[in-house]
Amino acid sequence: MVKGTSGAEIVIVGDEVVSGQVGDTNSAFIARSLIGIGLETARVVRVRDDESEIKRAVASALVSSRLVFVCGGLGVTPDDKTLNAVSELLERKLIIHKQSLDRIKTLFEHQGYRLTELAKRHALVIAGAMVFENPAGMVPGMVVEHQNSTICLLPGVPQELSAILEQGIIPYLKQRFGSERKYSAVLRTFGLIESRIAPRVTGVARRYPGISIGYYPSVAGLDIILSGADEAAVNRCADKLSEVLGERVYALKDKGLAEVVGEILRQAHLTLGTAESCTGGLVGDIITGVKGSSDYYLGGVIAYSNRTKMDVLGVKEKTLARYGAVSSQTVKEMAKGVCAVIGTDCGIAVSGIAGPGGGKKEKPVGLVYIGVAFRDKVWVERHIFSGTRRVIKERSAYSALDLLRRVLLKG
Amino acid sequence: MVKGTSGAEIVIVGDEVVSGQVGDTNSAFIARSLIGIGLETARVVRVRDDESEIKRAVASALVSSRLVFVCGGLGVTPDDKTLNAVSELLERKLIIHKQSLDRIKTLFEHQGYRLTELAKRHALVIAGAMVFENPAGMVPGMVVEHQNSTICLLPGVPQELSAILEQGIIPYLKQRFGSERKYSAVLRTFGLIESRIAPRVTGVARRYPGISIGYYPSVAGLDIILSGADEAAVNRCADKLSEVLGERVYALKDKGLAEVVGEILRQAHLTLGTAESCTGGLVGDIITGVKGSSDYYLGGVIAYSNRTKMDVLGVKEKTLARYGAVSSQTVKEMAKGVCAVIGTDCGIAVSGIAGPGGGKKEKPVGLVYIGVAFRDKVWVERHIFSGTRRVIKERSAYSALDLLRRVLLKG
Repeated sequence: MVKGTSGAEIVIVGDEVVSGQVGDTNSAFIARSLIGIGLETARVVRVRDDESEIKRAVASALVSSRLVFVCGGLGVTPDDKTLNAVSELLERKLIIHKQSLDRIKTLFEHQGYRLTELAKRHALVIAGAMVFENPAGMVPGMVVEHQNSTICLLPGVPQELSAILEQGIIPYLKQRFGSERKYSAVLRTFGLIESRIAPRVTGVARRYPGISIGYYPSVAGLDIILSGADEAAVNRCADKLSEVLGERVYALKDKGLAEVVGEILRQAHLTLGTAESCTGGLVGDIITGVKGSSDYYLGGVIAYSNRTKMDVLGVKEKTLARYGAVSSQTVKEMAKGVCAVIGTDCGIAVSGIAGPGGGKKEKPVGLVYIGVAFRDKVWVERHIFSGTRRVIKERSAYSALDLLRRVLLKG
Repeated sequence: MVKGTSGAEIVIVGDEVVSGQVGDTNSAFIARSLIGIGLETARVVRVRDDESEIKRAVASALVSSRLVFVCGGLGVTPDDKTLNAVSELLERKLIIHKQSLDRIKTLFEHQGYRLTELAKRHALVIAGAMVFENPAGMVPGMVVEHQNSTICLLPGVPQELSAILEQGIIPYLKQRFGSERKYSAVLRTFGLIESRIAPRVTGVARRYPGISIGYYPSVAGLDIILSGADEAAVNRCADKLSEVLGERVYALKDKGLAEVVGEILRQAHLTLGTAESCTGGLVGDIITGVKGSSDYYLGGVIAYSNRTKMDVLGVKEKTLARYGAVSSQTVKEMAKGVCAVIGTDCGIAVSGIAGPGGGKKEKPVGLVYIGVAFRDKVWVERHIFSGTRRVIKERSAYSALDLLRRVLLKG
């Protein structure tokens, strides 16, 4: 898709990402979004908030790439240098974008602030740029077509960058580079380990011509992305793999586990409640990340203390004394309890040791019980997760959602 | 510390990090290690496993930086191109390093493997390089002093890279660049808008010589980072700014809002419960992200439906009917209710419209009420947040934590 054989180049601007103070998640997000429309990334550069360094990086990117992203440093404070750097490099003026200015005025009015001269600069854009509204903030995204190159400018705040990309820039690029793309299909799976499943996946894919396979593991599951120039072959291969991997595949589209679970609940007219100990509210947070989740999710209890497990969820004192809070028996009572307290058809329960403290020999850090109550029955799974406190919480939460999904599929 | 005013440059080699398949944690680790010895990083470049791209990146780094790191691609399989690229660029031969070879032989013997010709290549180094043993693997680290530049080569496996850095290369660089370090201080704030506060911050910082200021906004607040060559001046400026910004500053160290709130609760021997509607468990999740939070956080209720608000939290049907779920009156009853149900000293309550649906003219998407109950009183704040569903949930959650912090500080 380029001058030469290389792909897109991403320039990330910001002292904080160069200094390692803040992790750069933006470049990986962009690279994955590009894969989704069949485009590759060749190079990522991170530079400080320094005008000459930004210029040098963008100029060098324009030499070798036809598609260049510049992210961060679009704000209005003195350390935001990107707009000036790019405007000088391309020899294009900065102008006020009327629509953006109107939007900023409205936002300031809503929050009861006076619109300062400095704040008006949020509406500055490169002359001739296509402007993409920022649904999550003030600084808009821009695309500049310049001497056979496409330059995309995005704010550095991850939520803003992803919103602008998804709603505006990716659809545009899909059109723009449409003829050079590859087709791809995704299989979103849960409960598979990359190194163990890869030989089987390769075995299947080998039967279809020109398919390449990518594995994208995360705490929310393993995505397997197939790509190739022949759309029909890609789709046939995806169907076959989906058959081979069975219930481990939870979606064939860009849908999350919580969305899939929500669809099953909605279609079956079932309601859901959550009882969480070690996840501390994360399961509820993930479920309510889906718009319209109030149709099936009624609420939950975060039973962080044993007192709350007993008083609110009705877990028996005897159960806690005999088996402990992290046990199969306790999650069973928590799952049934939440169905009764919130009045739902299904209940999810999680209890475990997220660490770093609190582990013992018989019950180590990472030991987590998850339970699902549905139709007078309770399913329980025992896991030992490794990782940081955050990772253990996330693995527990997604495993609980996946258990519910599998229980509901069996009906 | 450089030719010009810039800092170190880090070149990360690997298809997997460019495509976003694997996150690059190495560059942040190196940059933070350098900060620890007072050195800055100016630029990070990620390139694919391609000899000419590696050469181009390293050559460009050597033009502007006196300290260059090249990480990854040092192994012995066909996709490892770094050693060849650097050896050609510097016009230095690759030679077998006797000590490394002996070590590799011993490692192979220990594991009962035969030392193959391929495996011997693990001992290849750039002629004239200082070689640093790899305590976590086979490929050693190297430092090459070349025409007034220092080039550090490191394997890409994070555990190996960090072990070699910590045990060998960082101590060496501390000696080598000892006289050129910088100091920094952080002020973590909540409730400030970058564009509004910047003029005041600049006004204060101007009185201290050689201080530069960076702003790092996120949904969890605005971090202001001061840096300069004079440690005393940086600290005095931070103290003065802290005084000027008052209660908006929640920490002067690398601590999150939930950690700070937790410390206040622990010191005052107070317990906390949460009642969440639109945040769906996120407040609980953030609070329980802090290790040891079970000392003060007993639990909460996710009251997503009105039924749960009434049945579990005791919100009056009349209140919901007259004022609605998203109202000052409802969050008041939720905050008090959770203190009673969970049996805690303080209660946080959040109710709002996270969108994208469900907004009306009088109650638009983004309208959020937060309440804090403490000692028979309830404080309520009304916000209108903009952004995606996720952003609105996060802003609500952090605002609620910050309200609790401010209430507790007043005692």
